[in-house]
Amino acid sequence: MGIGHEVIERCRQLAKHTEEPGWITRTFLSEPMHCVHADLRVWMENTGMSVQVDAAGNLRGYYQAATADAPRLIVGSHLDTVPHAGAFDGILGVVLGVALVKALRGRRLRFGIEVVGFSEEEGVRFGLPFLGSRALVGTLDDAMLAKRDANGFSVADAIRAFGLDPATISEARDTGAILGYLEFHIEQGPVLESLHLPLGVVTAIAGQSRLDVKFEGKANHAGTTPMHLRRDALAGAAEWIGAVEREAAAIPSLVATVGRIEAQPGAGNVIAGSVHLSLDVRHTEDEMRTEAVKHLLGLAQQIAARRGMSSSSELRLDQAAVAMDARLVEMLGCAARASGFADQRMHSGAGHDAMIMAERMPAAMLFLRTPGGISHHPDEAVLEADVAAALATGLSFVDQLERAHA
Amino acid sequence: MGIGHEVIERCRQLAKHTEEPGWITRTFLSEPMHCVHADLRVWMENTGMSVQVDAAGNLRGYYQAATADAPRLIVGSHLDTVPHAGAFDGILGVVLGVALVKALRGRRLRFGIEVVGFSEEEGVRFGLPFLGSRALVGTLDDAMLAKRDANGFSVADAIRAFGLDPATISEARDTGAILGYLEFHIEQGPVLESLHLPLGVVTAIAGQSRLDVKFEGKANHAGTTPMHLRRDALAGAAEWIGAVEREAAAIPSLVATVGRIEAQPGAGNVIAGSVHLSLDVRHTEDEMRTEAVKHLLGLAQQIAARRGMSSSSELRLDQAAVAMDARLVEMLGCAARASGFADQRMHSGAGHDAMIMAERMPAAMLFLRTPGGISHHPDEAVLEADVAAALATGLSFVDQLERAHA
Repeated sequence: MGIGHEVIERCRQLAKHTEEPGWITRTFLSEPMHCVHADLRVWMENTGMSVQVDAAGNLRGYYQAATADAPRLIVGSHLDTVPHAGAFDGILGVVLGVALVKALRGRRLRFGIEVVGFSEEEGVRFGLPFLGSRALVGTLDDAMLAKRDANGFSVADAIRAFGLDPATISEARDTGAILGYLEFHIEQGPVLESLHLPLGVVTAIAGQSRLDVKFEGKANHAGTTPMHLRRDALAGAAEWIGAVEREAAAIPSLVATVGRIEAQPGAGNVIAGSVHLSLDVRHTEDEMRTEAVKHLLGLAQQIAARRGMSSSSELRLDQAAVAMDARLVEMLGCAARASGFADQRMHSGAGHDAMIMAERMPAAMLFLRTPGGISHHPDEAVLEADVAAALATGLSFVDQLERAHA
Repeated sequence: MGIGHEVIERCRQLAKHTEEPGWITRTFLSEPMHCVHADLRVWMENTGMSVQVDAAGNLRGYYQAATADAPRLIVGSHLDTVPHAGAFDGILGVVLGVALVKALRGRRLRFGIEVVGFSEEEGVRFGLPFLGSRALVGTLDDAMLAKRDANGFSVADAIRAFGLDPATISEARDTGAILGYLEFHIEQGPVLESLHLPLGVVTAIAGQSRLDVKFEGKANHAGTTPMHLRRDALAGAAEWIGAVEREAAAIPSLVATVGRIEAQPGAGNVIAGSVHLSLDVRHTEDEMRTEAVKHLLGLAQQIAARRGMSSSSELRLDQAAVAMDARLVEMLGCAARASGFADQRMHSGAGHDAMIMAERMPAAMLFLRTPGGISHHPDEAVLEADVAAALATGLSFVDQLERAHA
């Protein structure tokens, strides 16, 4: 059985542990997470790792170095899922971490390898993503622990219900010397597939701006108001959506999206008096992003003014871009080439645990091609050959790290 | 007290009879309609009219001709309102009818005048407009009588609850010789105001096409999907909304409106996979209208195809235009001029009782300027001088009709 096949089979086995029969749904420390831990623990222990679950519910398997007091490399991703998820988002990175250690066949390195399955990344249950990695870097604070889900249970309650002690959360924090963090993750987008490449070396995680934008015109009767006497908020908003698309397409690597729209009063025979829209803008360079947002809001003003309407906006999120560690990125690119694959650099348009880990340590990410770009969906998939490519690259990366610490 | 002032005061008095305190809301044969009838009955009887309520709840005041067996002119509009309405939509036409008879000061003509306050035009309670005028022309059938409102009450139940007998509905039907139908109505649009004119002679009521239109692209992650790999249904729909506006503006008298839009999944960080929209197209020439609809749907197909998406549509309403009677229109235009006002011809973009009455008799409508184009709103208004202008024009119209029947 090929290693790619085994990794995929293991992900599919873990996918059976779900809150909803027939679907893959596994939120923060929900009951089926115990079974995921149990399966992973067996696989980890079989490779010679010692396993524990920290107070934030992160599963942590440690593969010792050749010497005591050696630093360690953390390889991880998350074990929680969105509702009705696929089998690979997050989980693949953890299973690949175990496969990487297994591929060492007991060989001890000048550094240890800690494989971490984070308890939470998606933010589904508490609207608060990255609970697992935040605990590891020590930024999961009391306010977060007190945050409650739709049923009134707090993060701390969930931790207790899983049989853990939230009072010891600070013990989840990383200690000792750490060489860095490596995360394998499916791309969740169509770029690698469109390039016919299996792997992508992530250089940065894009920063995000999220805004609510409003156009205000005048509601009127669709039958009695001639075209030239209208102040149609939806026609104005539509013109702006076109401008957003055009402007974003003109700036390399920028993405800008209007995904939500609401027209009031929203009747077929009434001209829209007001329209609320969302704007999501991402780029790896924060200045490019904030300039683009400014420009797009300026266009909204111009369009509204020309139509005798008004536009306004409210900033909902302004999250800075996070660069991956230049040395680890270079090392990962060399590892890909050394393993016979292209060193395709790319950025991540979505957030990942690596973003949080980068606050405390050098971090790197390797993306795997996602067929059809499909993610957060039962059809989410990954190719056996790509998994094997990622593993080979990971081993080469470990070898380079070993040589660097000679 | 000027006649314009008196008519407006009477409309405001009738507005006090409402289902919702603080608002003007009076649906088909609701309790306050009794009070409206009571007030109007007094005013009608004071002008020498005999008054009855037919089985459809229409209030009908008859002002006798000089001779028995004379034909009659019907002057009418509706007494029901939309929720949170203004004081003039419909009601003004009935009160002006009474004022017209009052202005005759007992003078008898070669024809009688029947002033009708229709019980229902807006279609609010049963989703079925024109119940009153349909009964008068004999097209209120058993299926309509059986139609139920949100509380399970049928049209027939509502008639019974008002103290009338739905079994006698056929007696509401018009009998005897009828010269025609005249309806005074507020424009409910901005055209007359933009022309600085008090009155408009309606030549036709526009036909309407209503459609549901759908764009189907592909939902994707707003962060991980580059602009050139998107099939963004909302961007496609927005391009089409722009095309609808442009094409409609290029065709005289055509109006086309997208007033309803729904993007799925509708999250700010997800590219829209599908968008549902409404399309409302109106024109007084049915061929122009149906050609425009065909052209706009063709544009939707082109836009979708160029973007690798699909578009589809469903026709929800295809209502032919209704021409007003050429002879009465001419007579009304002459009457306006004779009274010192411009003979401004225009069409109606909204439906009116005149549309139903035109099925059985020559029909004409006179529009009154609507300040701000505001209607179906508490701010709905009409100017005293414009009411006086309409009354003068109506009297001149009656005089011409009298001469024509000499």
